[in-house]
Amino acid sequence: MHSEAPFNAEPPLDRLRASFVTAAQDFYVRSHGDIPKLDAATHRLRVCGRVDRPLDLSMADLQALAPQRTLGAVLQCAGNRRADLQPVKPTSGDPWAAGAIGYAHWTGVALHEVLRAAGAAASAHVAFDGADQVEMAGRRFRYGVSIGMPRALQDDVLLAWAMNGETLRPEHGHPLRVVVPFYAGVRSPKWLTTITVQDHPSDNHMQQQDYKLLPASVTEATVDWQAGLTINEMPLNAAICTPQAQARLAPGATTIRGYAIAGRRAVARVDVSADGGGSWVQAALRHDPETPGAWTFWATTLDLPQGEHELVARAWDEAGQTQPACAGDVWNFKGYLCAAWHRVPVSVR
Amino acid sequence: MHSEAPFNAEPPLDRLRASFVTAAQDFYVRSHGDIPKLDAATHRLRVCGRVDRPLDLSMADLQALAPQRTLGAVLQCAGNRRADLQPVKPTSGDPWAAGAIGYAHWTGVALHEVLRAAGAAASAHVAFDGADQVEMAGRRFRYGVSIGMPRALQDDVLLAWAMNGETLRPEHGHPLRVVVPFYAGVRSPKWLTTITVQDHPSDNHMQQQDYKLLPASVTEATVDWQAGLTINEMPLNAAICTPQAQARLAPGATTIRGYAIAGRRAVARVDVSADGGGSWVQAALRHDPETPGAWTFWATTLDLPQGEHELVARAWDEAGQTQPACAGDVWNFKGYLCAAWHRVPVSVR
Repeated sequence: MHSEAPFNAEPPLDRLRASFVTAAQDFYVRSHGDIPKLDAATHRLRVCGRVDRPLDLSMADLQALAPQRTLGAVLQCAGNRRADLQPVKPTSGDPWAAGAIGYAHWTGVALHEVLRAAGAAASAHVAFDGADQVEMAGRRFRYGVSIGMPRALQDDVLLAWAMNGETLRPEHGHPLRVVVPFYAGVRSPKWLTTITVQDHPSDNHMQQQDYKLLPASVTEATVDWQAGLTINEMPLNAAICTPQAQARLAPGATTIRGYAIAGRRAVARVDVSADGGGSWVQAALRHDPETPGAWTFWATTLDLPQGEHELVARAWDEAGQTQPACAGDVWNFKGYLCAAWHRVPVSVR
Repeated sequence: MHSEAPFNAEPPLDRLRASFVTAAQDFYVRSHGDIPKLDAATHRLRVCGRVDRPLDLSMADLQALAPQRTLGAVLQCAGNRRADLQPVKPTSGDPWAAGAIGYAHWTGVALHEVLRAAGAAASAHVAFDGADQVEMAGRRFRYGVSIGMPRALQDDVLLAWAMNGETLRPEHGHPLRVVVPFYAGVRSPKWLTTITVQDHPSDNHMQQQDYKLLPASVTEATVDWQAGLTINEMPLNAAICTPQAQARLAPGATTIRGYAIAGRRAVARVDVSADGGGSWVQAALRHDPETPGAWTFWATTLDLPQGEHELVARAWDEAGQTQPACAGDVWNFKGYLCAAWHRVPVSVR
């Protein structure tokens, strides 16, 4: 647990790696304010802005509006693996390990069906507001973000009320959340109350002055938020889940296990090193080829002699892309998108 | 020029960077055999294999078969920047600098229209044969490769007869070539004679035993080609075109110019360093947002004091992906997909 209020927590990595589908109780929670206590029986979703037919829907209305869909998708915090950046130089934000990620089956209706029912104009952006109240930068405001209309119209963007076949838990957005596969978790708001079709991105603090990628030379004091890259899709990444950092192991065969993720691309290869990247072996991969939004699990067994070892993992995607080696090469003051080689020191006695 | 027979050549990088659209005479040439001397008036294209209506088309037939299309696309050799890998350890293949790439406007018909006219079955692969004869591995055979059917059916895959508004030159595939945007040049055969719809990838040497990405530990002696990644899409890359390596410059303001490419993604940022990557500035970018197949040109002006400097460029794409720093991190014995930071030593006197 990184903080109690707002509630921010991630699972131990061995627990995360134990199941290809992440159980709701093991799924990381990133909140920006107190968890709203909402009642599905009285909850309303409003669809407004540049629409021909503004909607004000109960959960039952929404569920009757379009066919129910279930799809598998990873959600990952933009700050996943931030802890690996902090030895380079401190950053703002919680020091997430590699557990601010999870893979679940989400059930809901496609956002584009709701937009069509409302007669959305061919505007450029779809903004979402949550019921959660954020205190930040000396102000108190409701959480809000937006995505571009081309993404909003794709089949796989859901308004979801269930996770792994069960009603959403309060901390995961009960009774209704957005799920935007391949995008950083920030664009999948929980406790959804309002969808606004508009010509500009959300003017909410979360969209405008946070969750942007900035060069290493930029600081809190010098930041020009408009110059940052809005974080949507995320880079190629891999993490070692077992053994965990600082583990003490017996000499001999040790199985190294982890996950890898390549956005819309397939993970083509995962290399594992026991000598800090001096030499590598290729791990066995477990894909779900039917589900592009899933992650890849990998494992390999190495023979580790006595001594101190730096285990390292790196992935390659189907375009022959691989990861940068050093956290210093991707450091930024907000601590986002740490996708350098994952390094795990272990001791064999 | 890397070799005269087969003819393999790339332009000087300052010339490549001088024009956003690469002139035919400046466009790299990669041949695997002698350049065939073909006559457009008598050339035939056969479409066969798992089709309802095998076709045997003259160029006039082909041009009458579907609407003419022109699109902008980069073609890049899988061995572009191989020269940057060779200081790590020798590789096979020609030591291409960063000029085995170019951007042109291609005119032809969409492959999917031809496949539809032939009544192609829903097979998995589309194989192409060229008229060029390759001598390799002790055998002489016609050049052949294949692409997957899903890619073949996309709108932007062309059978092209013109480049930048002019009839294809012999070295660029006259009278007919394939253009598969975003894929390595190997999948865009020149001197096209035959299209075969089939259930398996091409069994040609070029598809099966070449143009695959293998781990650094694999050698010519130990290679298992089936375990390699077939090179189709290519990784994020950036190159400095001016000044060129070993340039002697006057102290003061120096403009650094180059290109960057991110496959189907947009180039979001290009960082330039004059101290080997210790500090970075952000270059100005020139995109063509209407043409996803185009590259990005970039430029920035640095004040260089007297001394020896290592200029470095690296790109970031819209998913926050950046490049690995060291050529050693991407080395492979075939010398493919060198996408490490581009480093250019210069001397300021």
